[in-house]
Amino acid sequence: MQTPSFTGLAIQPTDIDAAAARLAGVAHRTPARTSRTADERTGARLYFKCENFQRMGAFKFRGAYNALSQFSPEQRQRGVIAFSSGNHAQAIALAARLLGMPSAIVMPADSPAAKLAATRGYQQGQPDSEVVLYDRYTEDREAIGKRLAAERGMTLIPPYDHPHVMAGQGTAAAELLDEVGPLDLLVVCVGGGGLISGCAVAAHARAPGIEVIGVEPEAGNDVQQSLAAGRIVKIDTPRTLADGAQTQAAGALTFPVIQRLVRRVVTATDAQLVSTMRFFAERMKMVVEPTGCLAAAALLEGAVDARGCRVGIVISGGNVDLSHYASLIGSAG
Amino acid sequence: MQTPSFTGLAIQPTDIDAAAARLAGVAHRTPARTSRTADERTGARLYFKCENFQRMGAFKFRGAYNALSQFSPEQRQRGVIAFSSGNHAQAIALAARLLGMPSAIVMPADSPAAKLAATRGYQQGQPDSEVVLYDRYTEDREAIGKRLAAERGMTLIPPYDHPHVMAGQGTAAAELLDEVGPLDLLVVCVGGGGLISGCAVAAHARAPGIEVIGVEPEAGNDVQQSLAAGRIVKIDTPRTLADGAQTQAAGALTFPVIQRLVRRVVTATDAQLVSTMRFFAERMKMVVEPTGCLAAAALLEGAVDARGCRVGIVISGGNVDLSHYASLIGSAG
Repeated sequence: MQTPSFTGLAIQPTDIDAAAARLAGVAHRTPARTSRTADERTGARLYFKCENFQRMGAFKFRGAYNALSQFSPEQRQRGVIAFSSGNHAQAIALAARLLGMPSAIVMPADSPAAKLAATRGYQQGQPDSEVVLYDRYTEDREAIGKRLAAERGMTLIPPYDHPHVMAGQGTAAAELLDEVGPLDLLVVCVGGGGLISGCAVAAHARAPGIEVIGVEPEAGNDVQQSLAAGRIVKIDTPRTLADGAQTQAAGALTFPVIQRLVRRVVTATDAQLVSTMRFFAERMKMVVEPTGCLAAAALLEGAVDARGCRVGIVISGGNVDLSHYASLIGSAG
Repeated sequence: MQTPSFTGLAIQPTDIDAAAARLAGVAHRTPARTSRTADERTGARLYFKCENFQRMGAFKFRGAYNALSQFSPEQRQRGVIAFSSGNHAQAIALAARLLGMPSAIVMPADSPAAKLAATRGYQQGQPDSEVVLYDRYTEDREAIGKRLAAERGMTLIPPYDHPHVMAGQGTAAAELLDEVGPLDLLVVCVGGGGLISGCAVAAHARAPGIEVIGVEPEAGNDVQQSLAAGRIVKIDTPRTLADGAQTQAAGALTFPVIQRLVRRVVTATDAQLVSTMRFFAERMKMVVEPTGCLAAAALLEGAVDARGCRVGIVISGGNVDLSHYASLIGSAG
């Protein structure tokens, strides 16, 4: 089988190797776990890449650290801005502290207290770092970001549409394939496309015949629509448990990678995510956040038929408010 | 430092090495995980041996398989009996099926449906295997066991007081020390003493100066009392969340090992177990059963001061009914 062409894409296989070198000894080399029960249920051999065990609890640390570690000395001194109330915020806060630079994380004033506290926790000990709150009903976060960037000379790192972020995320698939050997399929959740685009480049570079499949929440299938339309389709913010995949559209850099290297995108319902979350807790003794269940749900609930295949599944993260988690897994299964 | 004497004990270091050879490729070599948060909180370097990721969800598989794999051809043909409604039952059922022998698991008729189903699930495909129910208020399980043993010639394997069981459990500590290197402390939960006795022999053989510390539920501190009295003290069945440590007394074989090789036994309250269970879910993204939290609770809640030490902690298992688990971790923390 022939390696596909990467020409013209925002990232190349060598970018992922370079990211892996930057992350060595900093990011966790997360385990690839297996489950006899999951194998029996799907008729396949599944390898779960456990990014819920990554630093700060999600793959986002990889992209954030890869991006920030390439800042110039002046950029480092001025620091980084991110808009996010989710894993990207925490990833940037932690990566910035590890690299000794200030961070300003712009978050809605009504974010859950636990998320605010976690983000501030990762900034702890790093001078000039702060969480900047805004009122999401009356204020424009873009404007706040631009003002901060202009006033302080800080660099904005977006959550997915950035080559260094994409390349960092791809190291998850690179590690998985390097550890378990060739795979027939790689199944990855899709929000803005940072994880799947990085992983698709890494996977095709290592296993030329591999099929990469994306999984979106059923309520937010903008990338599925975009692939059908041949252009980026923007949707309203979807209502789904998968809060990490509530993006409205893929990125200008991630979408071309998905078009070229991702075979298809399927969807999972919220009920399937809960059922998969319960499977992970009961059979694999792992806490996985709803978004992290997307890829596995497509296999376990039948949207992807993988009989006889060797399959990689990326579990993207494990950050979920415990009482919310308890209410989801405690409901009758 | 001098290796302590193992003379006169029911198991020797070579028994653990032999058990490890029998378990190779059959039991999982479970990961040793670390947590920066736990390290910061305790001032120590902690290595968590994750037996919640073991086959059937607990360390018990090690001892069961080690014992059953040493049956004579005739014993194999007749099969094995176990009394248990917990992890030992499931471990025996699974090990028996893997070795192609019948199993009879004697369980109370009012056991949770999930446990009955799980045990039967592990017996599936193995002819002549069954769950034998008894009424715990009117029937004597010992008598049932003796009758089955006499009628069918089956061999009874007790949950802890058996050299092959003890040696099998010790492979958990052997793997941990072989992977992470010398430790100052090894902290292990204590029920009947099968796990800690095996682990203590393995640990002292590998790290002569190591201190082994046991942790019991506060409500069921029979081994702590026994060490003080210098003889096995029997208590009423304790009321504790740690259902795997609801034993009334240590065993005739396990207690002498504990007396010689365990430095001391401390206790943890149910509230501390819940708090530790929440820690594992929130920070390490792992489901751990209450009994599996005992050892970590002693460190995280301060009963054991380990500042500056390298510490091994055995997480014994992750089998807990999901709705019960949800109610425990979902409560205000």
